[in-house]
Amino acid sequence: MSDKPDSKEKTIIAAAKLLRRQGYNGTALSDILAAAGSPRGSLYFHFPNGKEEIAVAALTYAGDSVRQAIAGAAKTSKSADEFLIRIVRGMAADLERSDFKEGCPIAPTALEMSGASEALTAAAGAAFQSWEQEIATGLQSFHFNAERARLLATAALSQFEGALLLARTYRRLEPLQRAEEPIRALVQAFART
Amino acid sequence: MSDKPDSKEKTIIAAAKLLRRQGYNGTALSDILAAAGSPRGSLYFHFPNGKEEIAVAALTYAGDSVRQAIAGAAKTSKSADEFLIRIVRGMAADLERSDFKEGCPIAPTALEMSGASEALTAAAGAAFQSWEQEIATGLQSFHFNAERARLLATAALSQFEGALLLARTYRRLEPLQRAEEPIRALVQAFART
Repeated sequence: MSDKPDSKEKTIIAAAKLLRRQGYNGTALSDILAAAGSPRGSLYFHFPNGKEEIAVAALTYAGDSVRQAIAGAAKTSKSADEFLIRIVRGMAADLERSDFKEGCPIAPTALEMSGASEALTAAAGAAFQSWEQEIATGLQSFHFNAERARLLATAALSQFEGALLLARTYRRLEPLQRAEEPIRALVQAFART
Repeated sequence: MSDKPDSKEKTIIAAAKLLRRQGYNGTALSDILAAAGSPRGSLYFHFPNGKEEIAVAALTYAGDSVRQAIAGAAKTSKSADEFLIRIVRGMAADLERSDFKEGCPIAPTALEMSGASEALTAAAGAAFQSWEQEIATGLQSFHFNAERARLLATAALSQFEGALLLARTYRRLEPLQRAEEPIRALVQAFART
């Protein structure tokens, strides 16, 4: 049984990548098994409730990876602008590296399944909220008060997610590159008020 | 044969609604037939290439409806702020009226299918670009020059799409309501520079 933690983690990582690229309904359980290289029995052992349970774990895993990257960007930046622009450049780098296949790891499943699965919608919402919170925490470290940090975090995440959607659909980085000027403008406006 | 234009249009409208609510892979051809109330033969007559062809027509139809709404908002607004905020309030009204089931009509299919269908990705991209163009045209009517209008249009559409994604996932209007302050800030910043 010593391979179990590994095989569980491999399944979650494989599922997260597939959900990011093609969403929930476009990903069959057999795709996840093939990508993870796990035996079917191990999958049912770890995820007795099947595909939805794997996808919830995958969204939670992907959400936490992004949250950690946001926290890392805050620690290594010298200003609020630099912090937020580092996030959007990270998104652009992921998108380009994957030939425009890997955008937001949460959005495809969130949009497809928001009417169909309470569990997936809750996991997607928890991921987005953890990013908003982590961005707000980062902004507070650059001397935004809690209320302004919270409002700017929502605005910045909205800007990033929308630009990432457009860039992925157009297969061009331009919308993400264009997001840098509005982000700088928002940092100035929210710092002032 | 006199019912043909009607049955074709009914199919497109039904497909557009289903794609908006549950995306492409979550929508079976039989769902579209049932929702449109069309006989299967009429569907194959109008769309010999099947589901993908229907979905392309549905994205084009939905894209044009939104583009017309944007043009209408520009005509009935007195300022760039009012114009853009009218768009985001329209999104919030649609979302609330549908019990959080109807967000962006393009984004779910765009994200699921961007790796899998050139035709759907092109149709989704054309819709988003027509919105960017229509927003830019509206902004020019409020005395933004062409270049600033184009950049602000991308920023505003990104802000709207991201906020709509968050609002739909959270099942709360708050992210869309919070988008109004950043939109005002962006209008000011882009008018100034």
